[in-house]
Amino acid sequence: MSEKAKKTEKTFVETRYYNSPEGSEFLLESGIILKDLKIAYETYGELNPDKDNAVLVCHALSGDAHAAGFKRGEKKPGWWDDMIGPGKAFDTDKFFVICSNVIGGCRGSSGPNSVNPATGKPYGLSFPLVSIRDMVRAQKQLMDFLGIQRLVAVSGGSMGGMQALQWSVEYPDMVASCIPIATTYKHSAQQIAFDEVGRQAIMADPAWNGGDYYEKNHPSSGLAVARMIGHITYMSDSSMENKFGRVLKKEKLGYEFATEFEVEGYLRYRGDSFVKRFDANSYLYITKAMDYFDMQKDRSLSFVFKNVKARFLVIAFSSDWLYPPYQSKEVVRALKMNGVDVTYCEISSDYGHDAFLLEFKEETKLIGHFIKNTYKKIRKAT
Amino acid sequence: MSEKAKKTEKTFVETRYYNSPEGSEFLLESGIILKDLKIAYETYGELNPDKDNAVLVCHALSGDAHAAGFKRGEKKPGWWDDMIGPGKAFDTDKFFVICSNVIGGCRGSSGPNSVNPATGKPYGLSFPLVSIRDMVRAQKQLMDFLGIQRLVAVSGGSMGGMQALQWSVEYPDMVASCIPIATTYKHSAQQIAFDEVGRQAIMADPAWNGGDYYEKNHPSSGLAVARMIGHITYMSDSSMENKFGRVLKKEKLGYEFATEFEVEGYLRYRGDSFVKRFDANSYLYITKAMDYFDMQKDRSLSFVFKNVKARFLVIAFSSDWLYPPYQSKEVVRALKMNGVDVTYCEISSDYGHDAFLLEFKEETKLIGHFIKNTYKKIRKAT
Repeated sequence: MSEKAKKTEKTFVETRYYNSPEGSEFLLESGIILKDLKIAYETYGELNPDKDNAVLVCHALSGDAHAAGFKRGEKKPGWWDDMIGPGKAFDTDKFFVICSNVIGGCRGSSGPNSVNPATGKPYGLSFPLVSIRDMVRAQKQLMDFLGIQRLVAVSGGSMGGMQALQWSVEYPDMVASCIPIATTYKHSAQQIAFDEVGRQAIMADPAWNGGDYYEKNHPSSGLAVARMIGHITYMSDSSMENKFGRVLKKEKLGYEFATEFEVEGYLRYRGDSFVKRFDANSYLYITKAMDYFDMQKDRSLSFVFKNVKARFLVIAFSSDWLYPPYQSKEVVRALKMNGVDVTYCEISSDYGHDAFLLEFKEETKLIGHFIKNTYKKIRKAT
Repeated sequence: MSEKAKKTEKTFVETRYYNSPEGSEFLLESGIILKDLKIAYETYGELNPDKDNAVLVCHALSGDAHAAGFKRGEKKPGWWDDMIGPGKAFDTDKFFVICSNVIGGCRGSSGPNSVNPATGKPYGLSFPLVSIRDMVRAQKQLMDFLGIQRLVAVSGGSMGGMQALQWSVEYPDMVASCIPIATTYKHSAQQIAFDEVGRQAIMADPAWNGGDYYEKNHPSSGLAVARMIGHITYMSDSSMENKFGRVLKKEKLGYEFATEFEVEGYLRYRGDSFVKRFDANSYLYITKAMDYFDMQKDRSLSFVFKNVKARFLVIAFSSDWLYPPYQSKEVVRALKMNGVDVTYCEISSDYGHDAFLLEFKEETKLIGHFIKNTYKKIRKAT
């Protein structure tokens, strides 16, 4: 097959499911036990016989296990398809790439829309709160199931980057390299604030009904508002100006509250399309997990990273005001204080926080080499 | 009376009301005619016999005519009491300071909660949309009524600054000096986006009921969410970090969706207290007026200011990301291209957009002298 044909050929993928052994108990950070842990996941590329070529990619708030390729019947590929595939940053010709839906999510892993075995009905708010560390510990079970003892790399943007950082300290022996992108080691007051307003918008929707709505109308209005708030924070002032400016959808101002500006139409569209694919309760659970995220607590940040064994490539974006570069730089500084091999790259971009999904060309250059070099080092050492 | 006693003595003020002459028609920018124009206003200090010592102060989105002093029975003074009074920036020992509630507002001026004389019921959404220019033209009627032919200064922060800028081009002969603070000459896509999400939060509240709720439950949940979004944009990342950080309201995490972080409690409190004093429909009308605000349109910005006769003091704040300093600088540049006497000051502050209400010491130094010098120039010229 020619290179061109290979590139345009669609790769079809399927989501698979891991179920924890019957009767097993998963102890959450809250102290609550979750039974019947289920994890939805996808894999791309082949695991080699040594099982030493695995890479874990972690998704952000609204992502899921479908990171790359196409599902039958769907027109759009996975959320990081630009980055995962043959010859791409996460090169499936060489690596076995795994992505799993976080627990607390709504796309196949245990979450508030899962059926509670004790009642036969969806958990709703009776699902226990989870943390980023819980998400990582669930992923660890999946790695054990797949027989993977060490990951060449753990990577992700935004909340995916939080998981990557948590992996590096939770299972230092399992992580050969860590690539946190556009992320932080702890949610700031402003980050908590934006999440809280999104949650309030959902909980203010009468259809939310205390989280018990699965057999009725879902709180679509509230979730749409939450998503709209999110979208503003994912873009930058200048990317919004370039994309929309003050362009009207109609010929002239209508002096009415209908959608008048392009930017209004975009937000409403993004809000409305999100509610079709995402569960409002999961939005509550996942934003809360991010707000709880604080690797530092009352310790020095360098202490937090004292046992890491991974090499690091930390990436931030110049116009990202939701997870500003200074937060990544603090991680880099703490790693350097521990003598960790760390490279920091601030990619100049106008796209704001969304850049981690859009600046794949720059990311590919940085990540592709980094992972291959990590793999060389692993092979050399063994 | 000693200086100290004078300073601690409460100044009591009353809101007054201007009604347009019976049968008069006020033509709005939309082409719609508003009858029975009503304007709530307050004044501080004394108008001198020459009527040449008047200063107009314009309020922001959630402000009103009560800019300074105390109303009987109220514990908190007006919204800019730090700036208006004897010896303050707007020195009432020398100047006659006026502040009026904008039309479209809900604090005494004509707005959606006013009674429509045609029906005997509140207008609701049948109130016509207004623009910043309409607000300014309504204020002009009030100035005519008060017999004021020229203002020593027009000033305001945020939307108040938009009105000040509009005054300078709408009535160039009436404005001796203009002090726009933390503002812009046109709303950007991001500014429109934040307003739109606030509007969507209100309109998503079933109690909003198409704007017809005055005899029923008001859309408090929606308005509270809108206000919370606003509050995040009024602060800076670093002011939120300094004020709240990750401090908990309780001893430890509760793993629940109740208010856990101080910042969550603050936002909920600000949201809940706002709904007691503000009308949701006015929030829609006033944010829309700001979104419509575009002095430039398809012209060069220097052309816009070609006829201004005012001196300018333009103030912006370093950490204001809602109305970033670059927007003020563009105004300054356009004024300079017209040879206008303009001073630009970027005050270094952590408070974000809220700085225009909080950095009164810095503002006082700048504004106090500027207005007095303007007045000297006026008196010298006549």
